[in-house]
Amino acid sequence: MGNLRVTVWNEWRHERQDPAVAALYPDGIHGAIAGALREHSPDGVVVRCATLEEPEHGLTAELLDATDVLVWWGHLAHDEVSDEVAERVQEHVLRGMGFVSLHAAALSKPTRRLLGTGCTFLWREANDRELLWTIAPSHPIARGVSPVTVIPRHEMYGEPFDIPEPDEVVFISAFSGGEVFRSGCCYRRGAGRVFLFSPGHETDPIYTQPEIRLILANAVEWAAGDRLLRPPPSLQHAPSGWFEPGAAAG
Amino acid sequence: MGNLRVTVWNEWRHERQDPAVAALYPDGIHGAIAGALREHSPDGVVVRCATLEEPEHGLTAELLDATDVLVWWGHLAHDEVSDEVAERVQEHVLRGMGFVSLHAAALSKPTRRLLGTGCTFLWREANDRELLWTIAPSHPIARGVSPVTVIPRHEMYGEPFDIPEPDEVVFISAFSGGEVFRSGCCYRRGAGRVFLFSPGHETDPIYTQPEIRLILANAVEWAAGDRLLRPPPSLQHAPSGWFEPGAAAG
Amino acid sequence: MGNLRVTVWNEWRHERQDPAVAALYPDGIHGAIAGALREHSPDGVVVRCATLEEPEHGLTAELLDATDVLVWWGHLAHDEVSDEVAERVQEHVLRGMGFVSLHAAALSKPTRRLLGTGCTFLWREANDRELLWTIAPSHPIARGVSPVTVIPRHEMYGEPFDIPEPDEVVFISAFSGGEVFRSGCCYRRGAGRVFLFSPGHETDPIYTQPEIRLILANAVEWAAGDRLLRPPPSLQHAPSGWFEPGAAAG
Amino acid sequence: MGNLRVTVWNEWRHERQDPAVAALYPDGIHGAIAGALREHSPDGVVVRCATLEEPEHGLTAELLDATDVLVWWGHLAHDEVSDEVAERVQEHVLRGMGFVSLHAAALSKPTRRLLGTGCTFLWREANDRELLWTIAPSHPIARGVSPVTVIPRHEMYGEPFDIPEPDEVVFISAFSGGEVFRSGCCYRRGAGRVFLFSPGHETDPIYTQPEIRLILANAVEWAAGDRLLRPPPSLQHAPSGWFEPGAAAG
Repeated sequence: MGNLRVTVWNEWRHERQDPAVAALYPDGIHGAIAGALREHSPDGVVVRCATLEEPEHGLTAELLDATDVLVWWGHLAHDEVSDEVAERVQEHVLRGMGFVSLHAAALSKPTRRLLGTGCTFLWREANDRELLWTIAPSHPIARGVSPVTVIPRHEMYGEPFDIPEPDEVVFISAFSGGEVFRSGCCYRRGAGRVFLFSPGHETDPIYTQPEIRLILANAVEWAAGDRLLRPPPSLQHAPSGWFEPGAAAG
Repeated sequence: MGNLRVTVWNEWRHERQDPAVAALYPDGIHGAIAGALREHSPDGVVVRCATLEEPEHGLTAELLDATDVLVWWGHLAHDEVSDEVAERVQEHVLRGMGFVSLHAAALSKPTRRLLGTGCTFLWREANDRELLWTIAPSHPIARGVSPVTVIPRHEMYGEPFDIPEPDEVVFISAFSGGEVFRSGCCYRRGAGRVFLFSPGHETDPIYTQPEIRLILANAVEWAAGDRLLRPPPSLQHAPSGWFEPGAAAG
Repeated sequence: MGNLRVTVWNEWRHERQDPAVAALYPDGIHGAIAGALREHSPDGVVVRCATLEEPEHGLTAELLDATDVLVWWGHLAHDEVSDEVAERVQEHVLRGMGFVSLHAAALSKPTRRLLGTGCTFLWREANDRELLWTIAPSHPIARGVSPVTVIPRHEMYGEPFDIPEPDEVVFISAFSGGEVFRSGCCYRRGAGRVFLFSPGHETDPIYTQPEIRLILANAVEWAAGDRLLRPPPSLQHAPSGWFEPGAAAG
Repeated sequence: MGNLRVTVWNEWRHERQDPAVAALYPDGIHGAIAGALREHSPDGVVVRCATLEEPEHGLTAELLDATDVLVWWGHLAHDEVSDEVAERVQEHVLRGMGFVSLHAAALSKPTRRLLGTGCTFLWREANDRELLWTIAPSHPIARGVSPVTVIPRHEMYGEPFDIPEPDEVVFISAFSGGEVFRSGCCYRRGAGRVFLFSPGHETDPIYTQPEIRLILANAVEWAAGDRLLRPPPSLQHAPSGWFEPGAAAG
């Protein structure tokens, strides 16, 4: 197989509005994520970035057609993403594109469309420490990951998390303030794979932390699946006996 | 508990356009479904009907607030359902309203919004016989239902059915033409329960068949859950220690 | 329906060996659980108790045939439970009996047989506080239960918990020492329902705590399902056409 | 990664008792399966075979320690498999070995131990044609597999199939006699992956059919996972703060 083709989408707003965030992420949050993927790729990965304020938010049909996995980071401007692009992302996932939804992107239009629920939760910006527990140690996304990853300081996301029962839960987090959160959740939707991963608040340098960078790389590889973009599933007429040897093509 | 409050929604178009359908369903498909629910209700059920061409398709917020389970039949006019009403239905399901999606309503806006996939399948109108196999005999929806229910003649719906892996599959159908279909699928979404049940083509008298009427009644009772409509799940700020005894209310 | 028939099984060893446990549970752990069920039963419940050292551990086929839900507490003596009785319990669950597995009973023979995994975990007896988070607020087992239940002091059980992906997770616990645990997990096995609930260490008065008593009662009601004990599923010969109207009975 | 190491286990009894079976499978059913795996292996596969009547049924701890995936075919002699070997197989699956259970091996001791249910079903030896429908076309086990695979003549296996709700269903079969069956089911158990695949009756040349051989090869590759055999999950004591940087190893 050729190189894995990843598109990292970022709102890219905090970094340009808030000097503290800019200092943590001089190349943008997307830049940090892209760096993590390149760092861990054994076989080569081609990472492109796209951001909110580009035409079509940078997510043209052409780009998505050539994307194996889309990584999404958004927080302030979910509503500014057009319904058309959100639908395009959803449709590509159903056709086989992977989708990794980071942090507040649980609330983004593409994530909510794919899961069907509101994906809300409790939150708090304080001085919580987050302990990210690996509850499915043999899952591909947990490869090489410690039983517990310590994030020294992070925004709290807490249950109840309004999501469908995940196909697999890989990580559950505990916060020093006492809350818990299903922080790494897998779903299959159509031919695509979806991973929700909650770490990544903009004012903490989460995506520079080595363990988190490894998880990002594992998640992207898992979400890629077989890297095939299939025709859109459709309502198809099937005449009697269409599958019999010798039947004319439907 | 008081009476179960069910709203049966029907497009109500075939019955008024096609005399053959009108002959099968003189009170509309909704009327037949309503009759099935009343027939089987042990404790009393209040059934109301709503149709496409009423204002707000008959589905005002007031009505949905007073609905334990919404049954949906649609086929020709999915696109004529307004996004606003589809979103209102989705939101009520997430708050605890049950939703029973019949036949081609798999492709309706509320079903697709709740499941996140396109819900497409193969289809054929021919002379197939459908055998509806009960694969989860102890599920509440299968109470009193035979191991196999014979539908003498029905439109074929075939796999692949583009849906998320169901939480539980209750029925799988076989068609005499050879195809199979997951014809009874359960999902939990937010506080609500969703059941997809594929039988119900308009030109066959499916909803007058006793076994199918029993399944409809069982499905509605299951989907009702605890009959509570909860506040919408929301993003909530949770200050440190909010849950401690003596903490001021958040 | 008649009264719910519950059998509470307890090893009944700690209480007779350790005066501190005896002081917490003067009627045995089984007595405390039985009391909780009676306290919460709206419609009447018949609770019987059975213990390890009775013949057949008190679990005769006759008793199980007349049991809607079996609650199991064991810790020191899993190996002393006979394989024959463990198999009998498993078989009754597959036929429709509910099974509520408490605390260290995750490691009991019936639980391991029903789940197929070792059900191991991390543990620590220290001074941890446990916060039991309700992550599925609309689940029947969570009816009336707070978003978070504080257990002031409890043995720590931590992930990874070697269980199959649950059909539904109702509770996740956080411990003050930092660990997390899926503390309330639902499974369907055959015609029966299984609930694993981790609170209940013998040296802490967990089963006298009102919130925990409510959860026990809810769990038993949920696990009861339709209260039918079915014939054992079996390999059955099915001649061609056996299901056709008019076919001779198979 | 090195070659995939597969062990194919076969009862090897029909082939030596029944000349008709011997004619279909001159190298034994295990020989045919081994051939299918070698035929499809892109990167090399090392296949070994083991049979019932060898000491320890050929399944020594040493062999299983060096096995990435165990394929199991059994029919007449499930009870002759020792509990000790069945437990050894189960334990290896929980540690990460893949397990592919073929045809009547649904009823074998290792399968039943891993799933916790009786795994019974309806059956009939007649002249049914089986249509194997691919319901999860993007699953790795379905790679290159047609929407429907025709097995011209096969023993009927029918629902209800007494298994836990699968993590993923890949294939559902229809029989010309009318029955349906979940013929390809995936489970994760501990660190291992389990696939139940029902085709393979001894008197029909199923394992010589190209499409079935492809599915066998795909299944083995999927079940292999990351090919790591982990330490057995165990109950582990975790002192307070064991995971803190600088803590002494637990």
